[in-house]
Amino acid sequence: MSNTRGKETAVLLLAQVIFIVLFGLFVDYGYDAGPGHVQLEKQDLNESGKELTFEQLYPMYQDVHVMMLIGFGFLMTFLKRHGFGSVGFNFLLTCYIIEWSTLVNGWFGMITTNKSKIELNLEGLLNADFAVATVLISFGAVLGVASPVQLVLMATLEVVFYNISLYIGVEVLGVLDIGGSIFIHAFGAYFGLSVARILCRKTQAENEKEDSDYHSDIFAMIGTLFLWIYWPSFNAGPAMDNERHRAVINTVLSLSACTVTTFALSSVLNKDAKLNMVHIQNATLAGGVAMGASADLIVYPFGALLVGTTAATVSTLGFHFLQPILLAKLKVHDTCGVHNLHGMPGVLGAIVSAIAIRIANVETYGNSFEKLFSERPVDSQAGFQIVGVAVAVSIAMVSGCLTGLLLKLPFWDNLTTEEYYEDEVFWDCQEEPPAGYEAAKTKEQETILLGGE
Amino acid sequence: MSNTRGKETAVLLLAQVIFIVLFGLFVDYGYDAGPGHVQLEKQDLNESGKELTFEQLYPMYQDVHVMMLIGFGFLMTFLKRHGFGSVGFNFLLTCYIIEWSTLVNGWFGMITTNKSKIELNLEGLLNADFAVATVLISFGAVLGVASPVQLVLMATLEVVFYNISLYIGVEVLGVLDIGGSIFIHAFGAYFGLSVARILCRKTQAENEKEDSDYHSDIFAMIGTLFLWIYWPSFNAGPAMDNERHRAVINTVLSLSACTVTTFALSSVLNKDAKLNMVHIQNATLAGGVAMGASADLIVYPFGALLVGTTAATVSTLGFHFLQPILLAKLKVHDTCGVHNLHGMPGVLGAIVSAIAIRIANVETYGNSFEKLFSERPVDSQAGFQIVGVAVAVSIAMVSGCLTGLLLKLPFWDNLTTEEYYEDEVFWDCQEEPPAGYEAAKTKEQETILLGGE
Amino acid sequence: MSNTRGKETAVLLLAQVIFIVLFGLFVDYGYDAGPGHVQLEKQDLNESGKELTFEQLYPMYQDVHVMMLIGFGFLMTFLKRHGFGSVGFNFLLTCYIIEWSTLVNGWFGMITTNKSKIELNLEGLLNADFAVATVLISFGAVLGVASPVQLVLMATLEVVFYNISLYIGVEVLGVLDIGGSIFIHAFGAYFGLSVARILCRKTQAENEKEDSDYHSDIFAMIGTLFLWIYWPSFNAGPAMDNERHRAVINTVLSLSACTVTTFALSSVLNKDAKLNMVHIQNATLAGGVAMGASADLIVYPFGALLVGTTAATVSTLGFHFLQPILLAKLKVHDTCGVHNLHGMPGVLGAIVSAIAIRIANVETYGNSFEKLFSERPVDSQAGFQIVGVAVAVSIAMVSGCLTGLLLKLPFWDNLTTEEYYEDEVFWDCQEEPPAGYEAAKTKEQETILLGGE
Repeated sequence: MSNTRGKETAVLLLAQVIFIVLFGLFVDYGYDAGPGHVQLEKQDLNESGKELTFEQLYPMYQDVHVMMLIGFGFLMTFLKRHGFGSVGFNFLLTCYIIEWSTLVNGWFGMITTNKSKIELNLEGLLNADFAVATVLISFGAVLGVASPVQLVLMATLEVVFYNISLYIGVEVLGVLDIGGSIFIHAFGAYFGLSVARILCRKTQAENEKEDSDYHSDIFAMIGTLFLWIYWPSFNAGPAMDNERHRAVINTVLSLSACTVTTFALSSVLNKDAKLNMVHIQNATLAGGVAMGASADLIVYPFGALLVGTTAATVSTLGFHFLQPILLAKLKVHDTCGVHNLHGMPGVLGAIVSAIAIRIANVETYGNSFEKLFSERPVDSQAGFQIVGVAVAVSIAMVSGCLTGLLLKLPFWDNLTTEEYYEDEVFWDCQEEPPAGYEAAKTKEQETILLGGE
Repeated sequence: MSNTRGKETAVLLLAQVIFIVLFGLFVDYGYDAGPGHVQLEKQDLNESGKELTFEQLYPMYQDVHVMMLIGFGFLMTFLKRHGFGSVGFNFLLTCYIIEWSTLVNGWFGMITTNKSKIELNLEGLLNADFAVATVLISFGAVLGVASPVQLVLMATLEVVFYNISLYIGVEVLGVLDIGGSIFIHAFGAYFGLSVARILCRKTQAENEKEDSDYHSDIFAMIGTLFLWIYWPSFNAGPAMDNERHRAVINTVLSLSACTVTTFALSSVLNKDAKLNMVHIQNATLAGGVAMGASADLIVYPFGALLVGTTAATVSTLGFHFLQPILLAKLKVHDTCGVHNLHGMPGVLGAIVSAIAIRIANVETYGNSFEKLFSERPVDSQAGFQIVGVAVAVSIAMVSGCLTGLLLKLPFWDNLTTEEYYEDEVFWDCQEEPPAGYEAAKTKEQETILLGGE
Repeated sequence: MSNTRGKETAVLLLAQVIFIVLFGLFVDYGYDAGPGHVQLEKQDLNESGKELTFEQLYPMYQDVHVMMLIGFGFLMTFLKRHGFGSVGFNFLLTCYIIEWSTLVNGWFGMITTNKSKIELNLEGLLNADFAVATVLISFGAVLGVASPVQLVLMATLEVVFYNISLYIGVEVLGVLDIGGSIFIHAFGAYFGLSVARILCRKTQAENEKEDSDYHSDIFAMIGTLFLWIYWPSFNAGPAMDNERHRAVINTVLSLSACTVTTFALSSVLNKDAKLNMVHIQNATLAGGVAMGASADLIVYPFGALLVGTTAATVSTLGFHFLQPILLAKLKVHDTCGVHNLHGMPGVLGAIVSAIAIRIANVETYGNSFEKLFSERPVDSQAGFQIVGVAVAVSIAMVSGCLTGLLLKLPFWDNLTTEEYYEDEVFWDCQEEPPAGYEAAKTKEQETILLGGE
């Protein structure tokens, strides 16, 4: 039986106490947010040259925050009986990861910079939100089939693996990924799909409660549109100078082309030539994912349109053709279709960045060239982009499977298939549950009485 | 019959391919977003003196983006069976126009500045959003009575006429219109009303599906409130220095007074002395429209309140008295009441700006005077404001009628009156359609079989 | 009978005319938004040293605006038959107070600075929004039990008492309260509860219409999440330099810990071990309230987590245990539970600030020390924080009771208990009212005919 009394409470309270202790031991304010004596060290900290100011970063940080809580949260409310769980567990996971990733990401930062404390500033909070995004993508793959205890456990592990992958990819291999096509979107998607493959016992597409209804689809559009609007802040947030400006332009153009193309393809794929809300809610965003790794590069405006058009095509066709095959042949059940929105477009983003880097030269980039490509020659860097996505996806799949196995252990409030996509299980809905759920519950109790399941 | 298989797909894919080619031929990054060699020209480009920085513009640009996609999109979800179409086609049109207006507006800019390329930067994207606003206003007039193919065609033409009107008004006549009362609101409204006059065959007010329901009215309030909140960014976005600060103050005050007045008038007009959601959703915003053309001028805080109060009065009375007359006498069907929210308040905005300019003097404005009124003496400029709105409305009505005639040609998926305000026509709703629609469809099919309609 | 024809109209129109006249007499643009001749005085105005620039303030101002209109507005839509009234009257009150508090707050500012005019700038508008927040908190306590005329009257008086309390607390006593724990949250809550105690005749918890339904609870989450996201802008808005950065970090951490703890406690309190939407919508925000008074102080990151955890505990236990007792024993009916979200966490915020100030020293704060604690020694200042909250709550309770008595006079459209929580009373809902309401109305009319109450 799911929803054990006290288990979720115990896990979260224990975590919260541990977080307070670890923050006490490790975390202090960064120099520009903090006490006077730290301010004296500013000279040393700032040796790398320019940094983004609070005023430059704050509006973009808030935009990203909206994407996490409203964007992801409402995008997932499309399920007609899982609105509370979608927006609620999304909320819980975001807050949990802001705390946990500040620690884990900070520890990796202590290794890199050889400091004795995690010096928290707005940039650190933005990095925490990037970890949040990664886990919320994975959450989309197991939406409605995992208990809150399982989700918190998944988040705890995924944040660690995400930071390992990021450290190897960016610090060790020097992969360029300003907007996270590789280390956020592709990683999050393949991690989540691996967990879903192990965890979810559902092997057929039909489940009456997995559908949307008219109002839940409109709620979901709130999520889609806020993700779309603030995506330029996600891709441009950590960039500076003209790279930052370019990242905004590239992302807006890619998303616009992606939306137009999605509307073009959605209706022609439908048997009645009608538009499909699943496509409009999801595939319209693939242009933001695919633009991520090269948002700050010179792909030219027409190139950004081309990226968006390609991403929409890959994503829409993925929803229509590939997703049913994944379920039937590979038994991967993907509630939100994250493979189509984050997985394939993330890999596409890595390929786009390899091409954009391969053709980069100092004449075109001017003084940006040295800033962006200081690590190695561009043809070599192009190869490293492909290596980077291969490494990220590999780590994601292996660690995702391990996490899935752990979540399957019988003491994490595992759901029965009858309880899938149903708020009534974990939420006090103050309403009569739908007839089907009651019947299912009775049947399930009988099964338990008879010693089955 | 509407919703021909493949027609929407063909139109959008063709447009997308053309956009990519034209972007390749014409569009490059602007100097502050772009490659190194362009940066060298910065000196020349910047000859006009000061320009807004990326950091000054970006938060306001994002606010305007929210207005387009969430604001307009959700405002139009008030129809109970047209939520998908309202928020969905609004999304499609926004993205389509971002691409198309970047080209058209850029070509006009090439004429003005004598350049060989469209140099795209954040200001260019903001200008594209202003074109989006214009078309979305027109969309409101034909909401629920036009097919996506017709809407895309309308957008394609309207963007051209909008840019012609803007070029004549601002470049040739030197009309001042920082927040677009004239060239966005009045133009968009009268263009849309002209299209509606030709296109919409509905001549009576009663249609059960044109109503709202309880939840659709709450969804619409999401749109209203985001439009209200971010309107100061719309009116102040292109302004600089103290004009910018003033534009924010004037717009906030005008909108606040407008809302209070709308609440005052709405209940007294109602037969049961009750508030009407149509007024609260729409007329509360008229203060933003009417403040547009003089947002950066010195109208004084009490003047801004006066503008808002007047706009609310014009708009609320328009909804109550004028709209039924327009339908009955002039056969203009205006689904969202754009005449009351954008048309009349836009004209009012032009008049307000004429008065504010007429009384302007160098003592009051200080060093702002030269910046704002460099073209000609203020009494002459006041006259040009009135000429400007007359020109804009004239171009809107003529080009709107021509566009309407084109849209009426029988190969653009024209809707039958039974299909009006119904998502089922273009969207896969995954639900049983309401009984009325099925009955209507059957009747319509009979009509077709019998060779009618 | 409630909803007298013309009374709401008369009150609002009269107020609007008075506002225009008073603005004409008292309000001008501030120097950085205004006419040239005022700009010359800039030197004198700026004698206090640094001020926030328009660019620093504007994005945070807009965030606070979203909190007022979307945040508070949608948070209160949880009632299933009061969505229009929640979001609508919230809208009306916000706009009314922006006008009225600009005057009242400006008059107090004229006293303090010895000026002859209210010089309005963005900071003034932000201060008006803080007055809005205070009244909207009180609105939550009487949600669904007061007519619009009563609400406008309450707002008119509360804005005056709020400014008196603020003047005594900040100008006279020198209490530190950057994010308004004391003078906004505690004041607003205890004022509202006092009004509710006098006004609301409801003494038992059960009212079928006071419940939420599935979709109204999801609408309410829009409010919760936008409040949560933009709370750092509320707490950091008026702060400068590293205090500002710190206020953002402290608030994000406190809110995150608060959310995790609320999820932990909510399910364990429920009889079926299920999560309660009331807690998730409200108690998750208590960390923002409790962090307010010390947001810009050095509480360290672990301290911010501790504040959030404590606030969640106080708030969730308050909803579960205290609120029913308040109703049964003290006859205080608190529709939104503002005592749990704003009242107790506000007092907690004062205590936290006293502790944080008591342990402050110049070694830790560096050059911030002089800026923050210029008034008096820190141990004395710590005492003044407690005095401050006692004064604010006392003024709130006395003035709230007086206001409640005034509102109870029989000519302000007082509601009968049958009309509570029902949009049908003041809104043209264009739908059949629910059966219960019609029956109640008939019964009530009979009661009136028979001369009863």
